[in-house]
Amino acid sequence: MPSVSKHSFDPKASAKPLLAALSGKTLARPPVWLMRQAGRYLPEYREIRAKAGSFLDLCYDPELATEITLQPIRRFAMDAAILFCDILVVPHAMGQSVAFKEGEGPVLGPVRTLSDIARLDVGAVVERLSPVYLAVEKIAKALPPETALIGFAGAPWTVATYMVEGGTSRDFLAVKSLAYSDPAVFEQLIDRLVEASIAHLSAQAAAGAEVLQIFDTWAGILPSKQFEKWCIAPTRRIVETLRKQAPGIPIIGFPRGAGVGYQRYAGETGVDAVGLDTSVPPDWAAETLQGKVALQGNLDPVLLVAGGAPMREAALGIIDALGGGPFIFNLGHGVVPPTDPDNVVDLLSTVRGG
Amino acid sequence: MPSVSKHSFDPKASAKPLLAALSGKTLARPPVWLMRQAGRYLPEYREIRAKAGSFLDLCYDPELATEITLQPIRRFAMDAAILFCDILVVPHAMGQSVAFKEGEGPVLGPVRTLSDIARLDVGAVVERLSPVYLAVEKIAKALPPETALIGFAGAPWTVATYMVEGGTSRDFLAVKSLAYSDPAVFEQLIDRLVEASIAHLSAQAAAGAEVLQIFDTWAGILPSKQFEKWCIAPTRRIVETLRKQAPGIPIIGFPRGAGVGYQRYAGETGVDAVGLDTSVPPDWAAETLQGKVALQGNLDPVLLVAGGAPMREAALGIIDALGGGPFIFNLGHGVVPPTDPDNVVDLLSTVRGG
Repeated sequence: MPSVSKHSFDPKASAKPLLAALSGKTLARPPVWLMRQAGRYLPEYREIRAKAGSFLDLCYDPELATEITLQPIRRFAMDAAILFCDILVVPHAMGQSVAFKEGEGPVLGPVRTLSDIARLDVGAVVERLSPVYLAVEKIAKALPPETALIGFAGAPWTVATYMVEGGTSRDFLAVKSLAYSDPAVFEQLIDRLVEASIAHLSAQAAAGAEVLQIFDTWAGILPSKQFEKWCIAPTRRIVETLRKQAPGIPIIGFPRGAGVGYQRYAGETGVDAVGLDTSVPPDWAAETLQGKVALQGNLDPVLLVAGGAPMREAALGIIDALGGGPFIFNLGHGVVPPTDPDNVVDLLSTVRGG
Repeated sequence: MPSVSKHSFDPKASAKPLLAALSGKTLARPPVWLMRQAGRYLPEYREIRAKAGSFLDLCYDPELATEITLQPIRRFAMDAAILFCDILVVPHAMGQSVAFKEGEGPVLGPVRTLSDIARLDVGAVVERLSPVYLAVEKIAKALPPETALIGFAGAPWTVATYMVEGGTSRDFLAVKSLAYSDPAVFEQLIDRLVEASIAHLSAQAAAGAEVLQIFDTWAGILPSKQFEKWCIAPTRRIVETLRKQAPGIPIIGFPRGAGVGYQRYAGETGVDAVGLDTSVPPDWAAETLQGKVALQGNLDPVLLVAGGAPMREAALGIIDALGGGPFIFNLGHGVVPPTDPDNVVDLLSTVRGG
């Protein structure tokens, strides 16, 4: 069974609050970063975005990806930078067509049959994503010494939903039907995604990422047995291999919407920390999960839009409930575009007790 | 604190398995019905729908609403019929504009200010929805003696999301912003919805509905404190008043996506039964909730599309976990249009051990 400190403690961690919390330390003030902290709510991001060809062009341009990753750090001095990238670069690097259409979300040429899956080229991932690792190197060099660098990937289940549906979905009919009716075929896809995720995350660690986060955005749509099979088990395989390939690098898992399933996820995947979505009661999480893993979360991103006293009170309530153990302050989901950057300043000052 | 049998036991219940389960009895075979069991997956529904003017016209036509409600009972002989209607008839009856556009979902003229809210006419609801109650009367007369009739309403929070957003939403920015930044204004809206829901549910019971279900489809998007304030508390107020206005009528609450919050919902709202969404682990629910309330659920609707052995095994697994206490078999969400009606036959025969 995993315990809180499963990676060897890094003496440099003392200079980086995020790493200290991930090693199981309870800090007087929680470190803080925000999912999607680089993005459309920042005018300096929109300026770069307006000049760029496509969203994926940004992800594959080491200079621009570095610049975008650093933008929120310059403005707000979060305790961590997270690589500017997207979970769909992995299927793209395996040879699937992926496009981002403005206001529509991603559009992929769906992968649904054994021969579609057989065409996916796991071996090409690291070579094709070399510009991403170059960005990681540049960011690692540019960051202040107290700021940790987070690399990430989508969890196999979540990436598979996009690959099979051909984009986002309301009912997830195609991917669930494949998983339920043809589990042997679906497992081939998940297996390839496990391999590709390991390769992609290891390469980020080798390039200078100090923490890895696995985003399982659609973990909450499966019945519990399927959640164990398609979310917990593949994540555990990734974590086990990363312990060898990227020793000492802490891993955060984010099984959004897992509800009661958070308990098994925290106990069985082997991750060092678990990201809580907005709906998880912080007091329940403190009592049930924090003995096993560090916790991260979980302010509603809409409270960051609302700002003011309601935001500050909610943030302090979360710190009250979770600050007594290893804890990283974050949102329960990503920053949304209508967010006023001034509210981010206010939030960070609230969390830091300023 | 509520216990399983909070309504007086009705001797007629013995003839209706659904009522027996709701009174706290453990049955050898669970009663079964399916959310959205009347609808687009049935060719006889599509035939009526093609001739009708609009979706709301169907809801307000007592003959057609009766016919549609009875269609799945004739085909499949579920243990309950649920009135064919929509949760948005309540805002419509209060004077808000509501339209259903094909493939787009509902479109409402948004209600966002105190003066928008002040214009909502709670007193008009029962008069304007009289065709709905006429349908309830007709259905009650037409049903076989062993089949229970379920009336329903949306929970105030869920109905408010549609009213404030002007339809469905991805981020629920407008409704959450109102609830977070202007709770006194939002409370006015919730108060009106509590009153309107009580009136609407009482009128359905008076017309012959034997069970009432409260659908809180968007219960899962709120932080826990807000969930308590906007989902649990208003539901409790509705339940408390219905105990007086509709004594002996059992109430099922369905806080979809509530996750860990299911525990407080089951303990604090006073409902007789709780509907489980697809992601709730049945064994956890049996252990944690079934001592307080009867349970209903929770087969993934996509398994009803997939059909065959995966569907049957999942159904039997749910019955294994939940059949040892008061339990009603259902889906974890509504039937989806691509469902083959033959799979419904197979599911019912599996649940009934045929």
